Amino acid sequence: MVERVNNPHPVRIAVDCMGGDYGLRTILAGVLSVLQRNNNLFIPYLCGSDSEIRNELAYLKATESIRTCCTIEHCSQAFSATVSKAKIWQELPNSSLVRCIALQAEGVVDASISCGETGALFASALFILGKLESVSRPALAAFLPTATGKQTLVVDVGANLASRPEHLVTFAQLGAAYVRSVKNNTAPTIGLLNIGTEPSKGPQEIREAHELLTAAVPGYIGFIEGSSVLSGAVDIVVTDGFCGNVLLKAAEGIFGLIKSVIPQDIAEPEKLFQALEVLNAEKYGAVPFLGIKGTVLKAHGSSSSQAIAAAIDLAISGSKGYQDTKLPPNIDKLERQI
Amino acid sequence: MVERVNNPHPVRIAVDCMGGDYGLRTILAGVLSVLQRNNNLFIPYLCGSDSEIRNELAYLKATESIRTCCTIEHCSQAFSATVSKAKIWQELPNSSLVRCIALQAEGVVDASISCGETGALFASALFILGKLESVSRPALAAFLPTATGKQTLVVDVGANLASRPEHLVTFAQLGAAYVRSVKNNTAPTIGLLNIGTEPSKGPQEIREAHELLTAAVPGYIGFIEGSSVLSGAVDIVVTDGFCGNVLLKAAEGIFGLIKSVIPQDIAEPEKLFQALEVLNAEKYGAVPFLGIKGTVLKAHGSSSSQAIAAAIDLAISGSKGYQDTKLPPNIDKLERQI
Repeated sequence: MVERVNNPHPVRIAVDCMGGDYGLRTILAGVLSVLQRNNNLFIPYLCGSDSEIRNELAYLKATESIRTCCTIEHCSQAFSATVSKAKIWQELPNSSLVRCIALQAEGVVDASISCGETGALFASALFILGKLESVSRPALAAFLPTATGKQTLVVDVGANLASRPEHLVTFAQLGAAYVRSVKNNTAPTIGLLNIGTEPSKGPQEIREAHELLTAAVPGYIGFIEGSSVLSGAVDIVVTDGFCGNVLLKAAEGIFGLIKSVIPQDIAEPEKLFQALEVLNAEKYGAVPFLGIKGTVLKAHGSSSSQAIAAAIDLAISGSKGYQDTKLPPNIDKLERQI
Repeated sequence: MVERVNNPHPVRIAVDCMGGDYGLRTILAGVLSVLQRNNNLFIPYLCGSDSEIRNELAYLKATESIRTCCTIEHCSQAFSATVSKAKIWQELPNSSLVRCIALQAEGVVDASISCGETGALFASALFILGKLESVSRPALAAFLPTATGKQTLVVDVGANLASRPEHLVTFAQLGAAYVRSVKNNTAPTIGLLNIGTEPSKGPQEIREAHELLTAAVPGYIGFIEGSSVLSGAVDIVVTDGFCGNVLLKAAEGIFGLIKSVIPQDIAEPEKLFQALEVLNAEKYGAVPFLGIKGTVLKAHGSSSSQAIAAAIDLAISGSKGYQDTKLPPNIDKLERQI
């Protein structure tokens, strides 16, 4: 039995063990790697098939002391792609994804991590945990590295397919509150992604959002183009969930592209690749839903063990991400800022 | 007077001198750099203010022999952002942008290059030169580097703001014909950009386009996510002009991002940066409108002299681009393939 003498209040984290593209073993390996590093920081609530989890823990040679740290929450229902994503929280209440969120609503855990389907996770979080009262539409937010050395926050990266102008305003407000909370930046700048910077450019809903943002959101500097994302021209990039998702996932390909271009016989490869690690998407693990009453982290479907470990680190310490991303200290503070 | 003994048929290229963010001088410096390298390959038709062009040629110390190569096409009308982009070809027929296209329609030049406003250039090309009969909607196409070493073509990168499902099908057909013409690839693969790969994912118009593409377009492999763009999973990425534009411009920021991350005291910096030049967007200069009856190249608004020179190289030789991009040998062949 592990003593938690140094940390009487470890963070309790529900981990959806069934939702990853690479299966249960990859997710559990990520959980174990964090526990093996320091089993005093968190209590994993492993949601999924009890027997499969026990088998994989044995396969991964989890020690007795490590296994004792884990609470297994047996979930009898398999996820089904045929169930409407918006209704999965009602129709599959004992699926691993929904059970994570339910444990959070019951006060059993402090945070949830899932590699499962974004729409199903969003709907479950929205309907079970609820949204902050001042928020019209929660969103997923992800930090990207930029050429300035600072990160830029992109909101939304996939919670919503299409976004009305007033939703884009909410994304800007959520992003600003988040950046104020987690970065040493009290007055973040905000840009609205468009195909040009002149006021006449772009689709009507983007131009309408521009008017609303100009009137209502401090720090809004106007339209920005795609070229401003990685250049770090603003602290927060506001866009709809489709475009933001494409952008985030495309940015995940930068690391592989660079590695493919660097000559194999380059001098000091370790030094170079260590510096490039800041571009490695595996490092940042998961992205939070902003505007939900609770910490729900969406991990990539194709998360590696390393990415799961990074997601857990993010949930535990609020001090990871690409480099220095922190979760809001508490949701109430975030709400007061919006 | 320059003799053109080796090349009796130099390519005649209309260059819009007034449309760039960095002014006339930058564009002319690009033109001159290609002429100074080899003045036997092309005849520039410099469209813009006669007096300003002459002043800048003098400032740039263009020699008499170089100046003799250039034909100045005086354009008396300034571009105006208040004129509807769709009507600029009617309302400002003697603006530099429209005059380039008109010279092409008159058979005076073989190709046009403009850094001007995409919508205005597209409308002018569409209404003055016309579109291929089989094409429902022309599109801008750009090659991006990928981790496989091959390039991937993204269509549309900004000619159209929103795209109906049947337009996305046309983009796939145009892209396939273009890749067959300019790459050694008779059976290119095509992916439709979406936020997931399952058939149920994404907005309705994307799912409808998926059905149409599956039924009608050889080489179509289904939905791809943003992560597949730079990984080089397909030869052609089909998307709407808004998302494609954001993606293209964001990718232009990769070079700067990488340079910012590489340690300043890295060994063999020349070797490394030479290898990374394949990611330098300045190298590829301009992107063609596919489906227009004629070669019209859209250069970036913020094109440097180097980018203008690359655009001219693309128009002249059809052998530049990122590395090995060629223009279609002729438009008729492209049309037969669609």
